[in-house]
Amino acid sequence: MAADGQSMNIEFKAIGTIHTPYDEPEGMPIQPPGGEGVNGSVEIFPEYVAGLRDLDGFSHIILIYYLHEAGEAKLTVVPFMDDRSRGVFSTRAPSRPNAIGLSVVKLNRIEGGRLEIENVDILDGTPLLDIKPYIPEVDHQPADRVGWLTGKKKRFAGKKSDDRFK
Amino acid sequence: MAADGQSMNIEFKAIGTIHTPYDEPEGMPIQPPGGEGVNGSVEIFPEYVAGLRDLDGFSHIILIYYLHEAGEAKLTVVPFMDDRSRGVFSTRAPSRPNAIGLSVVKLNRIEGGRLEIENVDILDGTPLLDIKPYIPEVDHQPADRVGWLTGKKKRFAGKKSDDRFK
Repeated sequence: MAADGQSMNIEFKAIGTIHTPYDEPEGMPIQPPGGEGVNGSVEIFPEYVAGLRDLDGFSHIILIYYLHEAGEAKLTVVPFMDDRSRGVFSTRAPSRPNAIGLSVVKLNRIEGGRLEIENVDILDGTPLLDIKPYIPEVDHQPADRVGWLTGKKKRFAGKKSDDRFK
Repeated sequence: MAADGQSMNIEFKAIGTIHTPYDEPEGMPIQPPGGEGVNGSVEIFPEYVAGLRDLDGFSHIILIYYLHEAGEAKLTVVPFMDDRSRGVFSTRAPSRPNAIGLSVVKLNRIEGGRLEIENVDILDGTPLLDIKPYIPEVDHQPADRVGWLTGKKKRFAGKKSDDRFK
């Protein structure tokens, strides 16, 4: 079947919940490098725990989640790190047409349905949609241009968000 | 509002369609390194084109898409590259509880709502959910363990899929 994308609603379900020290968007690190050393956990719902087998062999995992407090979608935003309006798809801002978040985090330990993770830039209570193993030769690309981020040195380390996407 | 993840259905809409030379899953590269040099395009629906501004400054982008031909979700799969059953979250197999795909591709050019991309491992007609700029210092992690993929040399280059996830 060819998908008629334009008219299609696509439905997903949370497979777990992400727990972090951040219970509100203000003050959060804006990307994993800003959350370095910050610990969190993921609770996978019992019906999905069997899918975690073999994941503990990977040092890093990709979390894909629902940005449940993203607020209204916007096509242009003034991103953190900048003072000019940018197309939302050129940013990692949460207020996207589909509020999907993506983080690569360190996986420290799995116990049953609980994952202990590190380098966390995610809001507490965030619904998890998917976990993928992080595979450097697949996920690491030799990007040589980073657009409007060019020249913004130490771009993410230690940066915190403010309330602009409330 | 605290999200009651377990009972929540999360609805997304396609923001565009991915066009590639692969009109059936068999014979596709299994990850972007296997699709090296393969060109494709993304057609963004008109109502979202304004969100593309500034994206052309980035050499690589992350595509998040709906694996619309993934088939039934399974919690364990025998992945390409392996002959043992693995937890689905430790693989990149499409038959996941939420059929979300993720690829980092090279962005060659944007013209209006059309993106020309390279290193494509995606099925033709795939509904696109989100585009994010690829930012090496955020997305590149020093992963030192790759679980069941350890020791599988030249793991992805040139590998093609078969019909196991039909």
